Parts: sequence; C-alpha cells; structure tokens
Amino acid sequence: MEMNNQKANHLALKRLLNSEPVLKDIRHAYEVIPEMKKNTIFHAGPPIAYSRMCGPMKGACIGALLYEAIAKNVEEAVKILERDEINFDSNHDYQLVNGMTGLITYSMPLLVVENKSFGNLAFSQLHEGMGKTLRFGSYDEATIERLQWFENTFGPALKKALHVTGEIPLKPIIAEALLRGDECHNRNMAATSIFFEKIARALVKTDVAKKDISDILEFIASDTQFFVTIAMAACKVSLDSASGIPGSSMVTAYSRNGVEVGIKVSGTDNKWFVAPAPKIEGLFFPGYSEKDACPDLGDSAITEVGGLGAFAMAASPAIVNLVGKGVSEAISITEEMYEITLDEHPVYRIPFLDFRGTPTGIDIIKVIESGISPVCNTAIAHREIGYGMIGAGLLRIPMECFEKGLISLSRELDSNRKE
Amino acid sequence: MEMNNQKANHLALKRLLNSEPVLKDIRHAYEVIPEMKKNTIFHAGPPIAYSRMCGPMKGACIGALLYEAIAKNVEEAVKILERDEINFDSNHDYQLVNGMTGLITYSMPLLVVENKSFGNLAFSQLHEGMGKTLRFGSYDEATIERLQWFENTFGPALKKALHVTGEIPLKPIIAEALLRGDECHNRNMAATSIFFEKIARALVKTDVAKKDISDILEFIASDTQFFVTIAMAACKVSLDSASGIPGSSMVTAYSRNGVEVGIKVSGTDNKWFVAPAPKIEGLFFPGYSEKDACPDLGDSAITEVGGLGAFAMAASPAIVNLVGKGVSEAISITEEMYEITLDEHPVYRIPFLDFRGTPTGIDIIKVIESGISPVCNTAIAHREIGYGMIGAGLLRIPMECFEKGLISLSRELDSNRKE
Repeated sequence: MEMNNQKANHLALKRLLNSEPVLKDIRHAYEVIPEMKKNTIFHAGPPIAYSRMCGPMKGACIGALLYEAIAKNVEEAVKILERDEINFDSNHDYQLVNGMTGLITYSMPLLVVENKSFGNLAFSQLHEGMGKTLRFGSYDEATIERLQWFENTFGPALKKALHVTGEIPLKPIIAEALLRGDECHNRNMAATSIFFEKIARALVKTDVAKKDISDILEFIASDTQFFVTIAMAACKVSLDSASGIPGSSMVTAYSRNGVEVGIKVSGTDNKWFVAPAPKIEGLFFPGYSEKDACPDLGDSAITEVGGLGAFAMAASPAIVNLVGKGVSEAISITEEMYEITLDEHPVYRIPFLDFRGTPTGIDIIKVIESGISPVCNTAIAHREIGYGMIGAGLLRIPMECFEKGLISLSRELDSNRKE
Repeated sequence: MEMNNQKANHLALKRLLNSEPVLKDIRHAYEVIPEMKKNTIFHAGPPIAYSRMCGPMKGACIGALLYEAIAKNVEEAVKILERDEINFDSNHDYQLVNGMTGLITYSMPLLVVENKSFGNLAFSQLHEGMGKTLRFGSYDEATIERLQWFENTFGPALKKALHVTGEIPLKPIIAEALLRGDECHNRNMAATSIFFEKIARALVKTDVAKKDISDILEFIASDTQFFVTIAMAACKVSLDSASGIPGSSMVTAYSRNGVEVGIKVSGTDNKWFVAPAPKIEGLFFPGYSEKDACPDLGDSAITEVGGLGAFAMAASPAIVNLVGKGVSEAISITEEMYEITLDEHPVYRIPFLDFRGTPTGIDIIKVIESGISPVCNTAIAHREIGYGMIGAGLLRIPMECFEKGLISLSRELDSNRKE
C-alpha cells in the first residue's frame, strides 16, 4: 500500500492546493441541485432520519416547512415530519455545505462557488446572522421572514452585484483575512469586511434601490461571521476535487449532525466513517453549561479539513477568547496539526509562525500512527429547540472515524490488488 | 525634580490614555484654523522657510499654489514662493497633522477629530491615495484635480455621511485594527476596511448621488492607507490634551520636515527640540536607492508617540515585509519600546504578546537613561520633486532631540523653583 498511498496522497494534495475557488453567482437550490424537490431537506453531517435528529435540527425542520409553505403552522409541520413525508439527505453528498443544522431547502438562494482549476461546483446558504436562525433550530417569525428576504431581496441583489464584480476569487480573501487575524471558521471579521467592501462597491453600480442596498449593507455589517459559509464552500469545492483518488488516505470532509459525526476519505470517495458526536469543551454564555449543549453539529468543520479553522488558530489569537484558550494554546494547536497533515498551505499563511503555511491535508494514516486527532473549533448549540448559540469551544474528531476509514481504505486496496 | 516629574508624567499619561477621539465632521481649513489665510501654507515638521525646504516639500508648495489658484502655472508659483509672498507655519503648532510634506492650505476639507474627554480638536487632510500626491511633492494635473474633487465632492459627501453616523469613536477602530494586523502608521488595511464599512453604510442613507457614492467607495477601497490621517488626528488630539503639564517629561509630538526633525515635550509645551533629519534604513522600490532618499519627513510619526506605528509592530507582522525586517524583529522593536515608555495602552493591545497593551507615553528621561531612542516606521520620499514614494523603512529619533528637551525641561523646573 505504501507507494500507492504516497502517490495518491500527492495527487489528492495537489488537487486540494491547486484549487481556485471563485464565488460566481447566486442560484436557487432547485436550480442547481437536480435531486432537490419541494419535499426534500438537505442537512449537515452524515445522513440521519428525522426521528433520530438532535433538537436544533428538528426545530430547523419545522422552520424549513414553514418557510417552504409546506406546513401552515408548527403543529402541521411536526405532523408532516413525523409521518415521514419529507425526504432527508446529507449536504456533503450533494456538493452542499451549511452551518450548524445546515438545512438547505428548495427555494433558498445559494452561493455558487466554482473551482476554476477543475470545474466542479459547491453551494452554501447565505449566512443568516448572529441571532435566532434556522441553522440554530429557530422557526420563529423573524427567522422565516429573514429567509424570505434572502429569497426576494438579498439573493437577487447579490446576484446583480456578482454580475458587476465578476467571479470573486476566494483564496486571496482568505489569505488576506489570515493576515488580519481570522481563521475563517469562527472568526471571519476581517474576511467579512473584505467581502463587504467588494459587494458595497458593486451594489452601488447596480439598479438595486438605495433602500435595499442599505438594508443589505446593514445586514452584512451586523454579521461578523457572514463570510463563513463562503469560506466553507471554498473548502468544500477544493476538497471535492481531491476526492475519489484510489489509495489516498487524505481526509476530504468532516461533518456532524449533532448525533453522529463522520469523515470522508479521498480513496474511499463518498463513504462516511461515523462515530457518536463528541461533546465540545469550551466557554458557555451566561446561564448555560455543558449539560445544555448539543453535541458537535454542522458542516463548518470543512474549514479545518481545508487548512483553516483550528488548524489556523495561530493566525487568529483573537479567537482564543471565544473558545476559552490562551494565545500559546492557539499556537500549540496549529503546531500539533502539522504532525497529521500532508503539507503546508502555499497561500494560507500564518504571520506569527514567520508566514509558515497552515497545516493542510489531514492524513488518516498520520492520525492513526501519531494518535493525534484533528482539532476543530466550533459554535455550541443548545440541545433543545429554540435557544440558538450558547457558547463556543474546541473538540477532537473521534479516533473511531479514522480507524474505520483506514480499515475500509485497506480493504479497497486489497480488493483492487486481487482484481 | 523627581517627585514633581513623576506626578506630572502620571497626569500627562492619564490625559493621553483617557482621551476619547471621535471623528465628527469635515470642515474647510479656513473655517477651523483662525490663522489660516489664503496665502498661508501649513507643513509637516518643525517650522522651516521655503528656501531651506526639501525637494518634495518645495514641489508640494507649487501644487498648493496651483490648487488654491494663487498661481496660474508652475513658473508663476515658483516666483511667488521665491519672493517670500507665502507665510509658512508648522502643522503641529496649530492642531494640525498631515502625512509626508503635510501641506494644509486654505480651501482643503479637513477631518475634524474631537477629544470628547477634554474638548480639544485636531484636524488632518483626507488621505490622497497611493500614487502621485501633494504629500509626496507632486503638482501634476491629476494631483490638483484630486484635491478639487476632495473639496467639491468627497469632502461634502463625507460630511453628510458623518451626519448619518454621528461621531465615530476612533479608539475602538484602532483597537480592532491592531487585532487585525495593523499598526496604524504604515499598515492601515484593516482600519481602512472598518472605516469603509461605516462610511458605505452611511453614504447610501444620504442624498449623495449613486455615481458619487461609487466614486468615493472606489477611492477609499483603492487606498489601503486611507485611515492613516484619521489615526494621526486621533493621536494628535490625545497628545495635545497631555501637553503643557509643568514638569512632565512625556513626549507629545515627533515630526519631521525632511531637513530637520523635532520633538515636543509636555512640560515645555510648544517648544521644538530639533536635530537634523535622519536617514531611513529600509527597502527601496526597484530603481531607487538610499542616495535618492529624502531624509525623514512628515507628521505621521505622531502615531508612534501615541503608542502605534513601530511601537505596535508586534501586532502587525505583515508590515515587516514593507520595511524589510522579520517577524522576530517586529516583536523586538515593540519589546524594546517598553523600556522607554510610561505605560502599556489599556485599549490598544497586541494579540501575540498575549494582548499586552502597546508601549505608550515616551519619557525623555527614560530615553536618555537607557540610551534607547524611539523607533518609527515610515514611507520614504524621493529627495527631488516629482517622484513620490520610493520605499519604506525604519529610523530612530535623533538622541539630540531628547538631550535638548531634557536641558530645557530642567531649566524650566529650576526657574519655577526660584520664583
């Protein structure tokens, strides 16, 4: 397996690092996902049935049915969901990524990110801001109205703005944001500012009404995490292009549905290697504690898999306040991640490690051999419906995922050899 | 002198650190500077006569007369200047600061910064962008047209925007910019982004035409240093409030006219302590070298005196590329500056020194006793008219300034004692 694996990893890594993600358009989910029907809901993490979903994801499902006008009220929505009339599937299996519960439904306007190097696409939702949101399981009126505003006003305006800007290359934004203290998972303040600049300049060149431009600029400016779903789509489209390379032990996805978490490995293509969702160690907002916390949730850890997030913590000392750690711990985390990755990112660089590239390309063999599991930073959702974000912290991907992945990869190589 | 000096420094420092600079308005120079006449030119650094000025400042004087329509052409401008028909004075003596040659003339729209804690004001010019500019001694058509656009379009629009935003507190912007890798002297990318956000959101709420809004947003977005004159005015207004405290050995200004440089000291109020302008060690753009360089020039080193710039280099590893140093040298410079300062800034913090405050409040006694002279980072102008910026680097304030300052301060204290 050794030589084959090395060559395969080299190729997978090359594809990941040579990817050129650009934000090019806003399209409705039904326009870009052939499998998307009115009664389909895509969600974060490995596939899961409604009955087994965590609280926030169930809440988000109610919100989704209200938003799509499939249900007239909450009671009706719950009935429809419990009668199993909705088809569920995993975002990651359909070029999709989205934060926390991660629901993506028929009518949503999606960010369209293209990988210019390899032609593949990825999609994500416009980030909903920091209060009660579908991604944290809210289905209140403000949440649904915001989704409608995305569909009717924000999405179409952004589409026009992107027509003015042309394709926006995302690697330069992420690279500059790292120089400005972001790690582009839980800190996106600088990236959002850079994105804001581009969109504001473009919006005032469109025929969008000044009032709508103003509302949109206020919305983006109020959401320090606005860029995160763009960063996620950039990582997803890059990692997807590195997927399906026989023999490669490079991780191409890590995601979580709040009950189970799973990784994907390049050499085993679309297979999930799952484990129970881990608890998150971190800081809780006043009034909440670990016992209120939903286990690990969301597609956003695709950023870690792409060399950002906790892997780039040393670039983002300001994030340490959020997750309850010190600056030296942020540096330690990044330094440890070099042990389990295939290379240093040539574009994403860390000023205070003398501009060393971020650790990129998690190798399941290195993880198993070193016993070092990848670290992710993450927001923490309440385990019940209707609370939203209650903290933020760090977690390690369960070793079980890597063990299962390695067994499967070995079997695949063995069977190939026999053929 | 000892006790008196300590108490005085404590008071000066308290005023500096308790200052609350806000950007509140745009006013014409003639509206806010009573001494401003049509034939007055204020300039950077200690006072200097036209005949002794460095090349770029002479060039800027020509540009100023063309802009103010005092001269119809270059030849006429030179004649007027050589006949000594223009009154010159130093920005720093009149609540003004401006970059490089630093010229401020009658009609210019100025940024109005108020110190909410103590009521004093400071003024600076809108930053002219990165190409040929008056501040680098250019007097070409594009330079003059830009000044006219500032006066007729940009200034009035920004005034309207500031009416929408209300007073903009500047310390929070600077503090956040430091977390995003700026040091707010020669790196202002993050601060400019933050300012851009505020102004864009406000402009779309004014009656300013979309085309003008677009031009203004393009202008700010094209100028990564746009925020620097705002940061300078914030430092100036804070340091001015700490000036004139008998017995205080705290530096309240350092500025340079390209021929001489000078410091001011709180206990000796408005007196300049001058020395020949030092050479700058740094990196030159291709085709230029040290022999082309104008010695130290501009009011912008007020940022170092306020605890920013080179004093905050450890917050800004990305600046090291500009000035030709490594990350560890950036950290060393900041660490050395703690030796000669009175305190650590409570708001301006350095992530990678575990959020330690920037070294703030230069004490001339500490400088003399330690033999450590303050470091500034700076742009380098060509010594001749018409070239602009040719590099960037580091310098140390000449020890002569501090020696003169200490002698004068001691004399003042002695004479006070005798009275």
